[in-house]
Amino acid sequence: MKTHLDCYPCFLRQALDATRLAGASERTQETVLGRVLGLLEPTGPSRTPPEIGDRIHRLVRQEVGHKDPYRAAKENSTRRALALYPRLKSLLAKASDPLETAVRLSIAGNIMDFALDRRYDLGQEVERVLNQPFAIDAGVAFREALGRAGQVLFLADNAGETVFDRVLIEFLDVPVVYAVKGGPILNDATWSDARAAGVDGAAVIVSTGSDAPGTILKRCSNEFRRRYEAAELVIAKGQANYETLSDEGPKAFFALQVKCPVIAHDVGVPVGSIVLRQGGAR
Amino acid sequence: MKTHLDCYPCFLRQALDATRLAGASERTQETVLGRVLGLLEPTGPSRTPPEIGDRIHRLVRQEVGHKDPYRAAKENSTRRALALYPRLKSLLAKASDPLETAVRLSIAGNIMDFALDRRYDLGQEVERVLNQPFAIDAGVAFREALGRAGQVLFLADNAGETVFDRVLIEFLDVPVVYAVKGGPILNDATWSDARAAGVDGAAVIVSTGSDAPGTILKRCSNEFRRRYEAAELVIAKGQANYETLSDEGPKAFFALQVKCPVIAHDVGVPVGSIVLRQGGAR
Repeated sequence: MKTHLDCYPCFLRQALDATRLAGASERTQETVLGRVLGLLEPTGPSRTPPEIGDRIHRLVRQEVGHKDPYRAAKENSTRRALALYPRLKSLLAKASDPLETAVRLSIAGNIMDFALDRRYDLGQEVERVLNQPFAIDAGVAFREALGRAGQVLFLADNAGETVFDRVLIEFLDVPVVYAVKGGPILNDATWSDARAAGVDGAAVIVSTGSDAPGTILKRCSNEFRRRYEAAELVIAKGQANYETLSDEGPKAFFALQVKCPVIAHDVGVPVGSIVLRQGGAR
Repeated sequence: MKTHLDCYPCFLRQALDATRLAGASERTQETVLGRVLGLLEPTGPSRTPPEIGDRIHRLVRQEVGHKDPYRAAKENSTRRALALYPRLKSLLAKASDPLETAVRLSIAGNIMDFALDRRYDLGQEVERVLNQPFAIDAGVAFREALGRAGQVLFLADNAGETVFDRVLIEFLDVPVVYAVKGGPILNDATWSDARAAGVDGAAVIVSTGSDAPGTILKRCSNEFRRRYEAAELVIAKGQANYETLSDEGPKAFFALQVKCPVIAHDVGVPVGSIVLRQGGAR
């Protein structure tokens, strides 16, 4: 997905948020903002939003001298989600269509996104996503692909959301490889976030080898790229994975909440939609 | 008031809005955004937000070759406000404290602001502002100043809001000079907007001689500057006049709705507040 002009105000907002979350001085905030302004070129080479986000957050980490401004926020998200875990399991046990419910729960967890400035009640989110119709529902193709696949490559998104993913993974009747970021970026899940969520009991956790948002294949490790190429079925969570992989072929299924107007436009659905969409092209 | 780092995302947003409102192509939007990015320097000389806004909107007009992108929107605002005029007059006729009600009605009109991305119902706004307590109420000092003043200099803000200002002016028992922008900027009122609102029947309309947002005295005409210096009492409407004149002395009274977090912080009140505040320093 190409970067849209409406992403630019949002880039500045995210840079300020991350810099402040790291406790940086007003002077450092000014420096970061000045450098971000210098880095953004709307007429430059076309990049996906996560590629630009990656450069911005790299710059923020450089200026604030803090490798993981979102660490405390991520730990807090995981704690909140774990408190809900028994209820998620019991909702799933009572479900009439448990696969769909497990997918919906995983999508409900996608609300835990610090790239956005939004408040929510996690319990209410679960209710909403369990009852809201899919704006795009590739459920039939997904069930078929799942029936054929010997293994699933599952691309994680945010810390906390990992607990919701765990519920889906525990339900799946096939081995799962759970891919997390190679280093801190925004509130994206890393190895320790996935372990704190208990995913290690249900899946093999691997790193993409990259600390860019989403999954920018050319920035991932050779090992991960080989794994991606060999995968029969990919479950990709969240907006950034959609932004970076939407045109990388039909073996990927994107499970997400559409939270930003630019992505809503690209997907062709309203903001607030829940989506299970199959990848295109390649 | 100094420009805050949080103004920067908003500058980009406003530049895009204005460019699109003028019907510019995607390519022109890119050019404008690129030039705005080049113009913003958070560590540069300290300017008020309207001074930077002025440079941005000047640049937009240059690129889109359109002198007044907000013209149709402004005419529409004036029509909507005029439709409410009889009701405003009848509310005022029934008021127990007519001066306060007239000031509140003028503040209610301050919702008609295209610098912000917000929907509202004009009738409901009037109800809200008539009943909401002032977050800052310089009413006592204002009544005193009004009792002494032989004339009032009234600094207009937006088109449409002009109709609400007219109700206040018609109530005042003292000659009023109503100052509008010297040329189109955002949806700020110009001479023709004030006349379309019927202000010319109640006040002498003059131009500030500047088409910058707010009232940047050094950008105004010599004639207007002399008028400002000689004024005994100034009523200044809206955020941009506050941003540019808040430190220009106690003869100015700022009547506004606080609609942006940066101004809320500077004024020391929550977003959504209504304020009648006396100017400081000088």
